[in-house]
Amino acid sequence: MHTLTALLFDDFETLDLFGPIEMFGRLPDHYRMQFASMTGSITSSKHGVAMQTIAVAELEHPTDILLIVGGMGTRKQVNNDLFLQTLATLADQADWVLSVCTGSALLAKSGVLDGKRATSNKLAWQWVISQSNQVNWVEQARWVVDDKFYTSSGVSAGMDMALGFIADRHGVDVARQIANHTEYRWQEDSEIDDFYHA
Amino acid sequence: MHTLTALLFDDFETLDLFGPIEMFGRLPDHYRMQFASMTGSITSSKHGVAMQTIAVAELEHPTDILLIVGGMGTRKQVNNDLFLQTLATLADQADWVLSVCTGSALLAKSGVLDGKRATSNKLAWQWVISQSNQVNWVEQARWVVDDKFYTSSGVSAGMDMALGFIADRHGVDVARQIANHTEYRWQEDSEIDDFYHA
Repeated sequence: MHTLTALLFDDFETLDLFGPIEMFGRLPDHYRMQFASMTGSITSSKHGVAMQTIAVAELEHPTDILLIVGGMGTRKQVNNDLFLQTLATLADQADWVLSVCTGSALLAKSGVLDGKRATSNKLAWQWVISQSNQVNWVEQARWVVDDKFYTSSGVSAGMDMALGFIADRHGVDVARQIANHTEYRWQEDSEIDDFYHA
Repeated sequence: MHTLTALLFDDFETLDLFGPIEMFGRLPDHYRMQFASMTGSITSSKHGVAMQTIAVAELEHPTDILLIVGGMGTRKQVNNDLFLQTLATLADQADWVLSVCTGSALLAKSGVLDGKRATSNKLAWQWVISQSNQVNWVEQARWVVDDKFYTSSGVSAGMDMALGFIADRHGVDVARQIANHTEYRWQEDSEIDDFYHA
C-alpha cells in the first residue's frame, strides 16, 4: 500500500486535484490518499469546493507519493517560504513527486527541480518558467518524467499523467482498464501535446 | 447569474462531480455553485474527499440547474424515499437537470425521467435501467438531451456533457475556449461513444 499525499492550499484548481485522485482511487488496494494543508483547516478550491485537510505535521502515514496541484493559489504560495520549505521536505522524503499544471512552479521555486526536465500549463508558461532558471523546462509535452518527478501540463493533463504513472508501475493494461471504467479518453503518449502552439 | 446545485450523498464518484464543476467554474460571471446534501453535513466521495455541504432546506439561492452525480452511493439512495422525493422536488423547480454516470438511476427512480430519453454508465447499465421501465434508455451516447434533462454516460462523460451544455447556452466557441484553457480533449459530438460495445 502506497500513501499519496496532496499538499493543498486555498484557490487550488479543482480538476487538477480530483482528476488524478479519481484515477489513483481506482486502485484502492495500492493507493490511499491523504489531503494535507499547512494548518489542517478547511481548504477551498477556486470553484468553492471546501474540503477537510490534515495538517502536514499530523499526517498519519509517511508520504510515498507527493502530489502538488496548480491554480491561482500558486501565485501566493511562491512567496510563502514556510510552504516552500515544507514542500521541499515532503518532496525529498517521497519516492515520487507528481505535479499538475502550475504546481510545477511551486516545485521549481522550492529548488527540488534543479537540473531536472519538467513541464507545466501552457497559458501560464512565462510566469512558471520565471520561477526558476535551474529547471530544464519542456514546453511541448503532455507530461514529463525525470528521475522521481512527474510533471504534467495544464489541468486535464493531470489525468493522463496519473494514468501514465499507473502504467509505469502496474502495466499499461491496468491503466487502460481504469480509463475504460471511467470512460476517459486517455492520451497515452506523453509526447503528444494538442495544446502546444509553436 | 445562474445557480447550479449539486445534490450530494456519501460515496459519490469523485470525478463525476468535479469534472463538470471545473467546466462551469470557468464561467464565474454566469454560474455559481452550491454543494448540497440532505442534512448539510460533511459529505465524502468514494475516494475520501470530505467536503462541506449545505442542507437542502438551507440553500441560499434557488436552484436553476440541478446536478446529480453517480457512484457507489447511488446503490443506497435508490432505496431512500426522502432523498428521491427531495431530488424530484429540486428537479421540478430547476430550469435544467444534469446527471453524470449512475446519477440518472436516481433521476429515473424518482420518476422525473418518465417518458424521456436518457443515458448512463456503461458498466452499470443493467442495474441503471432496472430502476425504471418508463425511461427511453439510450445506451450508445456520450450524453443525451431531452427537454430540460441532460444525462451523461460514465464519469468522464460528465465533462463532455458540461461543455455541451455550455455550448448550447453560450455558443460552441465559448465551450471550446474552456476546453483549451483546461487542456481538455473535448468529445464535442454527443452521439460518438467510444465506450459502447454492441
